[in-house]
Amino acid sequence: MSTVPTVTVWNEFRHEKENDDVAVIYPDGIHETIADGLRDVGYDVHTATLDEPEHGLTESVLDETDVLAWWGHKAHDEVDDEIVERVAGRVRDGMGFVVLHSGHYSKPFKRLMGTTCSLKWREAGETERVWTVEPGHPIADGLPESFEVPRAEMYGERFDVPAPDELVFLSWFEGGEVFRSGCCYTRGKGRIFYFRPGHETYPIYEQPEIRTVLVNAVDWAAPGDGPDPYFGNSDPLEDLE
Amino acid sequence: MSTVPTVTVWNEFRHEKENDDVAVIYPDGIHETIADGLRDVGYDVHTATLDEPEHGLTESVLDETDVLAWWGHKAHDEVDDEIVERVAGRVRDGMGFVVLHSGHYSKPFKRLMGTTCSLKWREAGETERVWTVEPGHPIADGLPESFEVPRAEMYGERFDVPAPDELVFLSWFEGGEVFRSGCCYTRGKGRIFYFRPGHETYPIYEQPEIRTVLVNAVDWAAPGDGPDPYFGNSDPLEDLE
Amino acid sequence: MSTVPTVTVWNEFRHEKENDDVAVIYPDGIHETIADGLRDVGYDVHTATLDEPEHGLTESVLDETDVLAWWGHKAHDEVDDEIVERVAGRVRDGMGFVVLHSGHYSKPFKRLMGTTCSLKWREAGETERVWTVEPGHPIADGLPESFEVPRAEMYGERFDVPAPDELVFLSWFEGGEVFRSGCCYTRGKGRIFYFRPGHETYPIYEQPEIRTVLVNAVDWAAPGDGPDPYFGNSDPLEDLE
Amino acid sequence: MSTVPTVTVWNEFRHEKENDDVAVIYPDGIHETIADGLRDVGYDVHTATLDEPEHGLTESVLDETDVLAWWGHKAHDEVDDEIVERVAGRVRDGMGFVVLHSGHYSKPFKRLMGTTCSLKWREAGETERVWTVEPGHPIADGLPESFEVPRAEMYGERFDVPAPDELVFLSWFEGGEVFRSGCCYTRGKGRIFYFRPGHETYPIYEQPEIRTVLVNAVDWAAPGDGPDPYFGNSDPLEDLE
Repeated sequence: MSTVPTVTVWNEFRHEKENDDVAVIYPDGIHETIADGLRDVGYDVHTATLDEPEHGLTESVLDETDVLAWWGHKAHDEVDDEIVERVAGRVRDGMGFVVLHSGHYSKPFKRLMGTTCSLKWREAGETERVWTVEPGHPIADGLPESFEVPRAEMYGERFDVPAPDELVFLSWFEGGEVFRSGCCYTRGKGRIFYFRPGHETYPIYEQPEIRTVLVNAVDWAAPGDGPDPYFGNSDPLEDLE
Repeated sequence: MSTVPTVTVWNEFRHEKENDDVAVIYPDGIHETIADGLRDVGYDVHTATLDEPEHGLTESVLDETDVLAWWGHKAHDEVDDEIVERVAGRVRDGMGFVVLHSGHYSKPFKRLMGTTCSLKWREAGETERVWTVEPGHPIADGLPESFEVPRAEMYGERFDVPAPDELVFLSWFEGGEVFRSGCCYTRGKGRIFYFRPGHETYPIYEQPEIRTVLVNAVDWAAPGDGPDPYFGNSDPLEDLE
Repeated sequence: MSTVPTVTVWNEFRHEKENDDVAVIYPDGIHETIADGLRDVGYDVHTATLDEPEHGLTESVLDETDVLAWWGHKAHDEVDDEIVERVAGRVRDGMGFVVLHSGHYSKPFKRLMGTTCSLKWREAGETERVWTVEPGHPIADGLPESFEVPRAEMYGERFDVPAPDELVFLSWFEGGEVFRSGCCYTRGKGRIFYFRPGHETYPIYEQPEIRTVLVNAVDWAAPGDGPDPYFGNSDPLEDLE
Repeated sequence: MSTVPTVTVWNEFRHEKENDDVAVIYPDGIHETIADGLRDVGYDVHTATLDEPEHGLTESVLDETDVLAWWGHKAHDEVDDEIVERVAGRVRDGMGFVVLHSGHYSKPFKRLMGTTCSLKWREAGETERVWTVEPGHPIADGLPESFEVPRAEMYGERFDVPAPDELVFLSWFEGGEVFRSGCCYTRGKGRIFYFRPGHETYPIYEQPEIRTVLVNAVDWAAPGDGPDPYFGNSDPLEDLE
């Protein structure tokens, strides 16, 4: 891994153009707000959006991407299946993948999880409290034991994902639900982090704790230089009788 | 779960018709040999094969199936994508899924894992020794600490699957490789067991230890009656301020 | 495993003798209430208490025990270290171990976990809502997606245990905390289930959902007949050069 | 974490004084050879040995230790229980712990695992082949898919440890056994890595791949600055009815 990870922040970038409430909070798009939080610590951050050619995720863009962050919500179905396979393949080859909030329902995340990734939800601007259940995990660096998101869309269990390899955060919701909010996975050589908080009508990506999580998650997900396995017909390494 | 699980053993059933060596070992098809091992303990076992309508995996067949065992090798691509999604969906809804040997590369297994499921392989009739690394796991019931498969096709690491939720068996190969040979997963409500040994040109499914594993695996994978989660928009369970 | 597991329910049995409020709820001791719930489904249930010789956990009692359920709260330190090692050793040899509520701080549980098993707590009679996050797990059989414990002592994260092998339940608390309430572990050949709900001043062990969990947990934790590993100096199984 | 981790390499340092064969390979003690491999990449490395006061592991030494590496073999029982508890407590508080070869049977490792940590073994100078099964794990950085240890003491399964949180390496042995050779655990806030290869009569800690693993393991195990949880009686964060 390069010392400074190169990040591509992907956004479907539709809400911001179509909904004035969203445009007020994220005038340049959610992707720019997320990108700013990562640039602040010196990461090399680019952005890509749905309506660009190949959704901005060309082979050459991905060649230069250590970690891809993904925000999508209302246009998951418009993501081309070829790009979905390209992204999933890159993750298996080692690219980090940080999936944000409603990205739980994005095609590449579902493709990599193998499950429906369904959940309960409610949009009522209620309190969420995020608890750090693995304080020794690198993604918990610099965080408090718990912090509040004052106005959040609720996501509640059952979250239909494979049991995470590491569970870093749990959320409590005012309305009575809980959620596994910070979930680590490895698929192929790639590290995947799903992070629940974040929404288009609340300024959650401005919140310091959220920014800290995303900075940590990118650092954790950035690829190393472990071996690229050989697959296929293979000669013996020892004499066979 | 019914006390006696209903099992459907699926086989692509091509090798047996096209290759005399295979036909000698498995004259009625590998599926019948596998099925016999399960019938011997009283399970209610049916079979289905690739060339039947809907590959023998109609909705009504799956309605009656607690656990689906899957053997495929040379015709993975001929399995219709609609049936693949049907099987994967049934597993997520709770149907057990026991994936045998070259079934690592079947479409439904890859669909549920989200990875390439690739590996190293070699067909040299070498010795495999299967080690029980979790002797407390139900799938290890009645087994010795280790047993040999005298002539086996080698599968070697890296096996590109998600880290198993539980790793029950490891294999040693004469040629110098190792393999995670007994891997448990839960996806949705369904339990999945991948078991490596087994091949079309060796009488492996006649071997008592192998039969014991398959009997145990079906029992372990059979569905329970846990809750069916509700997904979607959800009213609060507590008063919101 | 015998079809009908033999269970020993252990209780320190002090609150009931010293506190009238507790005595009203559990006149024969918490152990008898827990035992009744297990007897109702036909399990063979015995009890043992702190003030018996060897705390009622003699070698011969443990010889006949498939699963040990443990309730302790105020007298953890009075449990003799020799008995602690005996119980931990039996678990490693395959005896199931169901640890209840304040048993998180019992010596045998801490011994088997290797961590402090500390947590946050509060006794305010608040609402707890238990969520089933793994509806496909055998311990979730027959349960709803969530259920309430109307008046509960709160336990909150960080719960200082190893990440559970399987996480079945999460709790939501009225006061703002969350907790990993149903945690599965394997240690040696033994299966361990920690279950949070339950308290001496609330009639929680009379609640049907709680009884269902305990019945399921005993069934899940009951030992199988996997191999007893040999440890020590070992001859090669293959010729060495 | 400081950018450059501070490492204490602990060695019982007995074989080297008592056995000429060992003294030839490790004239300054195994600890110095291990320390040299870590100093080569710029880590700040100190050593401590059994016969020093408090085994060289005073509170002030541990205050300055990010990661403790542990080599012991024939004198495990001479390690004072107070120091064992001190080390285990430090690990739970976040100190990294890299446990080497026969350290599987050291008191602090057994204390943290909660199991017997027993295994099969044989001293026959046979070939070991270490396979990287998680090529995306940071501890696999810079390694090949597999590498050989030409003359190794065999350790074979069943290895009686909790299932590792992450399994990075598997070993193949000439004599027919397999072993989970690279096992990651988190206990409390501390990260623990057990690494099998290494022996007092073979120059294994001079081997480049082994040195790479130890460098990576220290980096992976070095503490972060996640929150220190509060444990105990806790006021509600929300109004209780």
